[in-house]
Amino acid sequence: MAKRKHNFNAGPAALPLPVLESVQRDLIDYRGQGLGVMEMSHRSANYEPIIDGARDAIAALYDLPETHEVLFLQGGASLQFAMVPLNLGPGGAYVNTGVWSTKALGEAKRVGAAHEVWSSAEDGFRHVPQPGDALDVPAGAPYLHYTSNNTIYGTEWHHVPKADVPLVGDLSSDFLSRPVDFAPFDLAYAGAQKNAGPAGVTIVIARKSVSRAYNGPPTTANILRYVTHAAKDSMFNTPNTFGIYVVGLVAEWVQQQGGLAAIEQRNVARADRLYAALEESDRFTPYARPDSRSRMNVTFSTGDADEDKRFVAAAAERDMIGLKGHRSVGGLRASIYNAVPDEAVDALIDFIAGW
Amino acid sequence: MAKRKHNFNAGPAALPLPVLESVQRDLIDYRGQGLGVMEMSHRSANYEPIIDGARDAIAALYDLPETHEVLFLQGGASLQFAMVPLNLGPGGAYVNTGVWSTKALGEAKRVGAAHEVWSSAEDGFRHVPQPGDALDVPAGAPYLHYTSNNTIYGTEWHHVPKADVPLVGDLSSDFLSRPVDFAPFDLAYAGAQKNAGPAGVTIVIARKSVSRAYNGPPTTANILRYVTHAAKDSMFNTPNTFGIYVVGLVAEWVQQQGGLAAIEQRNVARADRLYAALEESDRFTPYARPDSRSRMNVTFSTGDADEDKRFVAAAAERDMIGLKGHRSVGGLRASIYNAVPDEAVDALIDFIAGW
Repeated sequence: MAKRKHNFNAGPAALPLPVLESVQRDLIDYRGQGLGVMEMSHRSANYEPIIDGARDAIAALYDLPETHEVLFLQGGASLQFAMVPLNLGPGGAYVNTGVWSTKALGEAKRVGAAHEVWSSAEDGFRHVPQPGDALDVPAGAPYLHYTSNNTIYGTEWHHVPKADVPLVGDLSSDFLSRPVDFAPFDLAYAGAQKNAGPAGVTIVIARKSVSRAYNGPPTTANILRYVTHAAKDSMFNTPNTFGIYVVGLVAEWVQQQGGLAAIEQRNVARADRLYAALEESDRFTPYARPDSRSRMNVTFSTGDADEDKRFVAAAAERDMIGLKGHRSVGGLRASIYNAVPDEAVDALIDFIAGW
Repeated sequence: MAKRKHNFNAGPAALPLPVLESVQRDLIDYRGQGLGVMEMSHRSANYEPIIDGARDAIAALYDLPETHEVLFLQGGASLQFAMVPLNLGPGGAYVNTGVWSTKALGEAKRVGAAHEVWSSAEDGFRHVPQPGDALDVPAGAPYLHYTSNNTIYGTEWHHVPKADVPLVGDLSSDFLSRPVDFAPFDLAYAGAQKNAGPAGVTIVIARKSVSRAYNGPPTTANILRYVTHAAKDSMFNTPNTFGIYVVGLVAEWVQQQGGLAAIEQRNVARADRLYAALEESDRFTPYARPDSRSRMNVTFSTGDADEDKRFVAAAAERDMIGLKGHRSVGGLRASIYNAVPDEAVDALIDFIAGW
């Protein structure tokens, strides 16, 4: 039996063991069909139920309204940074909560005007807007863009922003971690490699009025238009067939855990325990402001780079890996995505308490 | 033991059984490291040797000159259709050998001028240019673009075009099937899902003078510039870590088969046997002109759509799948990529002879 370490990687990250066991079974002979899941033509009767099942499973988990649809693209959030302004037009309003928001804003500025309407750069991105905070979205902005969870700083929105314009959300790192009402969104996107599957699949949830009509410049490549993918049910070109299959298995697994409300409850409880252990310790300080702390990526530090290094090394000896902070912030980070078992979180809490 | 069918899918397609067995072993505990291959951070000491190994294995197979480098992108050939003109400039010359060439040309025309310098549309794309044929590349064209193998029509170039300008090649469907000298190429690209791995990875071979400097318009998104990916060793954003891992395994497998020269020899021999069986039969006619026939995708027909359908159904009863022709041509197609075993080709030849 394989000994699996406690994997706190920020992404690609831990996947549920039952999902990996299903993949093992399906690689050489998918459910008696005589070929492996990676070897199926994307346009075959073998594969169609797989992509349809993944799409339906995500829609079901979120109780997605009929006005919206799920697409499977490639290129990660980074390609979405470019596609959003190309499809929704210039003038977008961006909430800047860190590296990824800054990149999204930068790509929008290549296409046309784009506005930073809020930033926490001044305190090192230790917090995100709170429900009462004004966001000053310019009148006529086609959308308000925000990043729901910031892996690098360990911050997370605990509410969906309210605005007079449609929302666009980069939900990459807390997708499938809690319920979301997509009604106010024109678009939401998520690289799969946190809670939802392997790297190389981007899940897009689009309002159909956006994904079924293209109103951008004629120079935009076909493949960069949402309508291209929506019109072909994510089969305009060969999709990442294997990645989508894994996303479908993960979505089924989330359902088996009780769905998104149950997953959220568990995620809140164990993040609270981990932050409490950090607060109780006199050796560690959490990075994010208390009202903005992420339930996915817990950032902290001893305040001493050498001691942080020793902590990472000592944790690795106890089979806890992936605890080094992002190079742009330093310190320590524990990513506790859905698939990280409770026992891994508890082992880390014990280790922190004893440090 | 799983019973594996004879898989003639055009892509995603058959993968070598030893590769799939390695993947099975590496999914839950990669070589004793305590985490699965899909669960590794792309920037970790676990994963770096995997992507480096895949890159080196491809370079070694092709004996790639020092002037060139291998990149791993996403989005398939379809995204390359857009990236090529955005990076190499307008005015490209395109050889039109079918659906994919036509799409590549169409995307180039969105960016600026682009020229069709040759076409076999008149005979239904049954042939590709032969070594003596003039291609009439306009003076000053930044590149000549061609599609080395046409999956839909079953045609293939058996030489590399000669031109006074740099080459750009869509090598998607015969990549890793034979040796290629990349010295005349500014760029070559291949979706992995034929001979090289699963869908969702694009292998790009770029001349470094092209991939290390960007001279296109400033509006182009960062992620659509080769320099962005080359400067970060294909880690600008999270790559398809799993797909690249499989490509590395496939490249190792090709090396174990004796390398590209040996693979080519086998591919030529068995394609010749299959075409000979079709020629000898009085029931079938190959689609492509003899001088242009693909060693990867063998297209043929009985000339009667109903009989073609009966052939597909009868073949499926004998565990031969994926033989239906592309919807735009109809008829029959057997894709005999590297990973299709000789015994599958022989079974098909016997079945054709007995029809």
